[in-house]
Amino acid sequence: MKLPNIASTLTKVRQQNPLVHNITNVVVTNFTANGLLALGASPVMAYAPEEVADMASLAGALVLNIGTLNEQEIAAMLLAGQGANRQGVPVIFDPVGAGATAYRTTTARKIVQEVKVSIVRGNAGEIANVVGENWTVRGVDAGANKGDVVALAQTAARKLGTVVVVTGPEDVVTDGQRTYVVANGHPLLTKVTGTGCLLSSVIGAFAAVERDMLLAATSALVSYGVAAEIAAANQGQAGPGSFQIEFLNQLSKVSSEEIIKYGSVREIN
Amino acid sequence: MKLPNIASTLTKVRQQNPLVHNITNVVVTNFTANGLLALGASPVMAYAPEEVADMASLAGALVLNIGTLNEQEIAAMLLAGQGANRQGVPVIFDPVGAGATAYRTTTARKIVQEVKVSIVRGNAGEIANVVGENWTVRGVDAGANKGDVVALAQTAARKLGTVVVVTGPEDVVTDGQRTYVVANGHPLLTKVTGTGCLLSSVIGAFAAVERDMLLAATSALVSYGVAAEIAAANQGQAGPGSFQIEFLNQLSKVSSEEIIKYGSVREIN
Amino acid sequence: MKLPNIASTLTKVRQQNPLVHNITNVVVTNFTANGLLALGASPVMAYAPEEVADMASLAGALVLNIGTLNEQEIAAMLLAGQGANRQGVPVIFDPVGAGATAYRTTTARKIVQEVKVSIVRGNAGEIANVVGENWTVRGVDAGANKGDVVALAQTAARKLGTVVVVTGPEDVVTDGQRTYVVANGHPLLTKVTGTGCLLSSVIGAFAAVERDMLLAATSALVSYGVAAEIAAANQGQAGPGSFQIEFLNQLSKVSSEEIIKYGSVREIN
Repeated sequence: MKLPNIASTLTKVRQQNPLVHNITNVVVTNFTANGLLALGASPVMAYAPEEVADMASLAGALVLNIGTLNEQEIAAMLLAGQGANRQGVPVIFDPVGAGATAYRTTTARKIVQEVKVSIVRGNAGEIANVVGENWTVRGVDAGANKGDVVALAQTAARKLGTVVVVTGPEDVVTDGQRTYVVANGHPLLTKVTGTGCLLSSVIGAFAAVERDMLLAATSALVSYGVAAEIAAANQGQAGPGSFQIEFLNQLSKVSSEEIIKYGSVREIN
Repeated sequence: MKLPNIASTLTKVRQQNPLVHNITNVVVTNFTANGLLALGASPVMAYAPEEVADMASLAGALVLNIGTLNEQEIAAMLLAGQGANRQGVPVIFDPVGAGATAYRTTTARKIVQEVKVSIVRGNAGEIANVVGENWTVRGVDAGANKGDVVALAQTAARKLGTVVVVTGPEDVVTDGQRTYVVANGHPLLTKVTGTGCLLSSVIGAFAAVERDMLLAATSALVSYGVAAEIAAANQGQAGPGSFQIEFLNQLSKVSSEEIIKYGSVREIN
Repeated sequence: MKLPNIASTLTKVRQQNPLVHNITNVVVTNFTANGLLALGASPVMAYAPEEVADMASLAGALVLNIGTLNEQEIAAMLLAGQGANRQGVPVIFDPVGAGATAYRTTTARKIVQEVKVSIVRGNAGEIANVVGENWTVRGVDAGANKGDVVALAQTAARKLGTVVVVTGPEDVVTDGQRTYVVANGHPLLTKVTGTGCLLSSVIGAFAAVERDMLLAATSALVSYGVAAEIAAANQGQAGPGSFQIEFLNQLSKVSSEEIIKYGSVREIN
């Protein structure tokens, strides 16, 4: 996967301004919307069962995130997901906290069974719990970087029949056949809430403009990670508040030249 | 409408610190509350059917926003609106996404039928869909600046019997008789989520201190737009993250002198 | 209570990275999560009745906040509180707006009756209304600093059998026997939404690492207040937007040396 192709995919997002329908958690709605706007996409949040299928079918991508799930929202996610499926709209799924409680694990598995998902993104613990592999989780943020993350991602991709993104100190993207490791990003991302959730929505924006889901997901990871690195270089020393704001700035500014200069993707054979 | 009167209305908001009750969407609650605080108003969010009429009757204004509507919230909006009506508390309505889905359009029309609304604010597409005029909408942000916005606003004001504010590159305020165009604001507002929603709540703060709804709405638009222009001049080049923060700063700082110097209102005959 | 002990308690939060489960209002979720992350704690928000007891029992502390209460959320708070009680997890309760509507007052009283709460934090009006003392409240932010706040706090602590924190221009912490007054903080905190709510969650982070609830609450107040003072000194003149961001920065940076230098606690005999 070549960095100029990744930069071109980012350019397509900015040119096409895709509508991304998010059914996401109450913690990250504002940050998700601002991140998508900064990037050049057009966010919409809609949750009512009466309208989610309509809204999802208008969108370029649908992002489902169970961070603060409840029964009504799960029902809406299934309706939205099925609406998206009928129209061929790609669905991105973020199984926040799968493994932390039985309810989250069960719900995550129900969603991947009842909706045709294109890309699943989570940390290693979440992905392991969605597919029933052994991994330890605490709260909703844990499980990073123990065990063989590449093998886990590949197993999950094969079991789910989707592209899987496992994020951590390095990110793994795979469809079970081809596998890429992205080494962009910055530890300060873990000090700002919703950076994983926003990443899932950003992957949605890329999936709305690029049919190759491996290229879409990898391009999102590189663009996001490079923006974070530049933001950390500019404002990281000031602290996590300033970093968050500068990260939004850089999502709107990160250029093709910076993607090509700082992007780090390698294929695993 | 004279700029010194507009500046005086802003001063009244800061002196009277009006309580503004918002039933708004989950994306913009935090930004709305911070924007109202910065301006000098006192925000409250309350949604439970058990208390919304009580809270609305304590407030200086009630703001209803259907950005992430659901059945429970619509029921609460009707109860709150009727409570406000009984006490003579002005109601501002923001029909977010009317036209994007049938559910939003139907709900918006139900609210203007069952609640006596003082001011409706939306973009051209939303306003057109509330009153059944022809206009194209995509997602919740579209429909700006095609067709004759002034004629649309006047038609809507007459049909609804309210003041109507149609925002876009220029904003139109009308009661169907007198019509003003405000040419303040900045394109960066479209890169920050909830700037339309916050504007509706800011209009609520002005309506709480000024009985003339045309003066209240126009004063809100000018104050908001001038604050945005100053914020963009100070921090716009840094990006949308920094602009958002500086905009909150300027809502607290924008002065009578700046309103008079930079305000742009013209009457349409 | 000695400042080096307070500084040590802050250090324990940063070392132990406690999981704080928040059931809080829709206005402050993002700011609460970012504030806890900045401080060094690990936030989780979970609201579904199907999982709240599980999540609360995994946490180091549970924080209940009724800022945008509804029937479902109250039911979840009771389940979570009882789950926390079974595991000995401390529960912090923030009765936002008690007294503003009958519904809030009734709910607040129900929660302190049905859940064993360790610490209650509110402004004077809220605390008075929880325990049935006379005090005037407007909206959700009122009631600061009229009447004898120390006597109110002590009465409330004895009636509730908990530690009570009454915040205002000066903060009072008491278990009904020992009483401390903390004179840190800054008026700009009142211009940023959710600073009271975040404080309750920060008290939760301290209660997760320190069994002495008076020391935990006082350490939280001093750390929070000193961070606010430094943030105001650095960015207060820029306005409330910049202050909010710098406050997040300072929550991550405030040092033992600064706690000892700027902390202000006195015991009331």
